[in-house]
Amino acid sequence: MGSVAFDAIETPFGKTDKIIGGAGTYIALASSFFVNDQKIVAVVGDDFPQSMLDTLRSRGVDLSGLQIKKGEKTFFWSGRYHNDMNSRDTLVTELNVLEHFDPILPASYQSTQYLMLGNLSPQVQRTVIERLENRPKLIAMDTMNFWMDIAKDELLHTLSMIDLLIINDEEARQLSGEYSLLKAARVIRDMGPKYLIIKKGEHGALLFHGDQIFFAPALPLEEVFDPTGAGDTFAGGFMGFLAATDDISFENMKRAIIAGSALASFCVEKFGTERLTEITKAELEQRIDEFVSLSAFEMAQSI
Amino acid sequence: MGSVAFDAIETPFGKTDKIIGGAGTYIALASSFFVNDQKIVAVVGDDFPQSMLDTLRSRGVDLSGLQIKKGEKTFFWSGRYHNDMNSRDTLVTELNVLEHFDPILPASYQSTQYLMLGNLSPQVQRTVIERLENRPKLIAMDTMNFWMDIAKDELLHTLSMIDLLIINDEEARQLSGEYSLLKAARVIRDMGPKYLIIKKGEHGALLFHGDQIFFAPALPLEEVFDPTGAGDTFAGGFMGFLAATDDISFENMKRAIIAGSALASFCVEKFGTERLTEITKAELEQRIDEFVSLSAFEMAQSI
Repeated sequence: MGSVAFDAIETPFGKTDKIIGGAGTYIALASSFFVNDQKIVAVVGDDFPQSMLDTLRSRGVDLSGLQIKKGEKTFFWSGRYHNDMNSRDTLVTELNVLEHFDPILPASYQSTQYLMLGNLSPQVQRTVIERLENRPKLIAMDTMNFWMDIAKDELLHTLSMIDLLIINDEEARQLSGEYSLLKAARVIRDMGPKYLIIKKGEHGALLFHGDQIFFAPALPLEEVFDPTGAGDTFAGGFMGFLAATDDISFENMKRAIIAGSALASFCVEKFGTERLTEITKAELEQRIDEFVSLSAFEMAQSI
Repeated sequence: MGSVAFDAIETPFGKTDKIIGGAGTYIALASSFFVNDQKIVAVVGDDFPQSMLDTLRSRGVDLSGLQIKKGEKTFFWSGRYHNDMNSRDTLVTELNVLEHFDPILPASYQSTQYLMLGNLSPQVQRTVIERLENRPKLIAMDTMNFWMDIAKDELLHTLSMIDLLIINDEEARQLSGEYSLLKAARVIRDMGPKYLIIKKGEHGALLFHGDQIFFAPALPLEEVFDPTGAGDTFAGGFMGFLAATDDISFENMKRAIIAGSALASFCVEKFGTERLTEITKAELEQRIDEFVSLSAFEMAQSI
């Protein structure tokens, strides 16, 4: 579940017209490298291009939960990245069809085992959980500062219902009120999610569960061309990998993080979803190998 | 080679009177976990306490290259860390004996195979290299923004003579003029050093050599009590490990980074050198194990 949208993006490298974006789009595309029976819950207007719907369908995405609102317009976001690519200004937000989004879950969706709730209002996220008759094996969600500012209670309610929260370091600090990510992780997991992934951009990601911590590397990149969608691509790759392997052990979550990170490292190489729709499974496997050699080391038995 | 000094430190957790510090001190203490025939090149005044000299000697440090200047005062630095512990203001710098430091290398030092040049003027660093009749197997150095600002040509000259530069991300960006660390690494290695370590504090470290990159994790910490000396401790542990194993392959440098990182993670737990002089080899081995489990993962053959 996540937005399927139009974006217009400015980076130091150039700017785009309206291109296709949205968390739901990136999540669906990224997960399609591992599974081909994903089901999307989203809403668009009748201005949304058929070609992307065809692309999604060809990658195994079930679109029966995608509402197409006649005479209405698709969610639109426009933003400008600063020179360091780590921060951005929102230029335009047109909610359009998202303003009254009431997620519909077709009967065929009821067997869902791996649920990824992309960043949307915590109330909509909770509605999706409540409309599933059987609880999925793993419920993961993303959120952002905006909801912490204006809907904290709703957010806390939804957090109490999920298994895994995927957020960035700045968001983790705001949500917990703690600067140390170790302390932040403890506070956030007390809110509900047993698992927590804190994304640190070019510095990798941390996975927390019980007393265990995994520090995942990020691939050092020459250039980040457009960071839009990298976090959603990570989440989609992560959940797609877990669903394909149907194994939610800590060890397998580590692998899923590497898979998601590898996909995200492609995503930022071009504007929008362009790079994601180009790469082959062989290219992805090669990139995953780069992650392995990037962080592998073996200590002797004794120093 | 490095300063042996007095520090006075203020952090959000408290402040110290004059305590013992200096890059040379941290490097010698850290390396003593792996080797017991280190030789120090440094200068102090006759106000420097005998007790620390005894501590160093008991850890195998040859002090015959440590000049004790009668009637002069030891280098003194005082600084205050900001709340985020990532930046600090210098409150006092008294060069004292360092102002006219002319490094002396006793004959017994001429067989040195692993040379660590702590942060000092690039001219002094170069003098040490020039006073060794046989080139060591590995010459590593640290430097800082200050020398890039006021002695860039001297710095470039010294860089052309060394094998490995160990600096932090901010310094790498300033030295290279490149924001991307991948590009910065290329520019810096064109200046001379075949090996480059970029330290990223809580985000770990990167090792570059040829086309190879290693992304070392940092241990997520509850609290950084005092970051002073962490970088020097890392460098000392790294070089001590290499010297003890006498292996400068890329694989072994990875292990050395983990060893140095583990020592640095202890260093920040208390003020100054206190924690370093407390910990046992068993504690160090246990912490190294934590680094291993922090970043170890195994991908399946195929995704």
